[in-house]
Amino acid sequence: MSDTTQGIGLAVSTVIFALRAHPETGLSALWIPLVRRTRDPFEGSWALPGGWVRESESLADAAGRNLLETTAVEPSYLEQLYCFGEVDRSPDRRVVSVVYWALVRPEQTERSEDGDNVRWFLADELPELAFDHNVIVDYALWRLRTKVEYSRIAQAFLGSTFTLAELREVHEAVLQRALDPANFRRQVEPTLVPTDAVVTGGRHRPPRLYRYDESISLVDNGPLTHGPAPQNARSIA
Amino acid sequence: MSDTTQGIGLAVSTVIFALRAHPETGLSALWIPLVRRTRDPFEGSWALPGGWVRESESLADAAGRNLLETTAVEPSYLEQLYCFGEVDRSPDRRVVSVVYWALVRPEQTERSEDGDNVRWFLADELPELAFDHNVIVDYALWRLRTKVEYSRIAQAFLGSTFTLAELREVHEAVLQRALDPANFRRQVEPTLVPTDAVVTGGRHRPPRLYRYDESISLVDNGPLTHGPAPQNARSIA
Repeated sequence: MSDTTQGIGLAVSTVIFALRAHPETGLSALWIPLVRRTRDPFEGSWALPGGWVRESESLADAAGRNLLETTAVEPSYLEQLYCFGEVDRSPDRRVVSVVYWALVRPEQTERSEDGDNVRWFLADELPELAFDHNVIVDYALWRLRTKVEYSRIAQAFLGSTFTLAELREVHEAVLQRALDPANFRRQVEPTLVPTDAVVTGGRHRPPRLYRYDESISLVDNGPLTHGPAPQNARSIA
Repeated sequence: MSDTTQGIGLAVSTVIFALRAHPETGLSALWIPLVRRTRDPFEGSWALPGGWVRESESLADAAGRNLLETTAVEPSYLEQLYCFGEVDRSPDRRVVSVVYWALVRPEQTERSEDGDNVRWFLADELPELAFDHNVIVDYALWRLRTKVEYSRIAQAFLGSTFTLAELREVHEAVLQRALDPANFRRQVEPTLVPTDAVVTGGRHRPPRLYRYDESISLVDNGPLTHGPAPQNARSIA
């Protein structure tokens, strides 16, 4: 056995979450883009967007490049989710996959259209995917649902300012359950800063716009971004 | 450029935290074991325990094997910390390292003795390490200090039952600051269950032993251990 791991392929995959209406309920729900495999193993099956890492690119760059090439989705920031390396996860050869994830706003997916080989799926109603990709999506969903309880994760779906109703809708879509508006307001208000702006549109009592309190530190931005997140970064944490 | 990543080496490293007395203050402090490199690059420098992944072993198995071979430390559970893959992190060739971490109790390190090529260091007073290992340790420390605020991380250092004073000492060692006993009790008591046991030894008012409330779910055990942690798992989350 070689001790230089030359037989191990290194790949990246991404799990991209966007909020779109559920076709039956009309409520916001989580969707992810998948790519149809055009060669073995698992030819014809749906899989997460991804591919091999090139020697000259970082892992996050490789994930972003493969995502863009296959789905035309361009998140402003990818966060590392986990490195999957079970010995038998690919039938042909040993492949270790570093998985990234991102939450994206509608304008970041507008160039990504459903076609024969790319399609958006409801994250909770996936077909049987190639490799261990169902396990990977399940883990990403679990992480997302856990993190939304203690982080400002919803900002990634909403932009910098939002109403309490918009924020509640994000939490409801992620958690898949209705939340009491008064309880929700009590829980999230300590982490928010009211802006001077309101939503315009002629209503009698227009809703106020809030932003997150940036003085409260994020939970985890990865090892290279400990300080305040850059302006265009939409960290999941 | 090959698209099958054959030029990329896949390695594992581990960051092991143990609590031992600080040689000057006598207070509990965080220590980690390091290994002296016996070949280039960075021959003679201290580095995290680690090595190549073999084709036939999972990433966590590779991390555990390399850790045991170099330091004789045997944690009951290793948690994945992060995968480091910057292009220039190794001078000779491209190496991607999956880093694991663990908190260990004193009995799990008793076979690991300081020698010429293995030594325990205060985690906050490290020399300049090989590769990007200072960055990795800094990240592990930051994760540990963040997580101790919202998880039952201290249990890994203490075993299944402990007094409030023992638990406070762990938090103080991790956070490197004194905590007010009354405030600390108020904060942690909702997550604890008092046992019927007390610490024996003839004192007038022996301190009560507590355990964590296992009905409160852990934050993150990784993708393969979503349910309750196995009896011998000491998750960091």
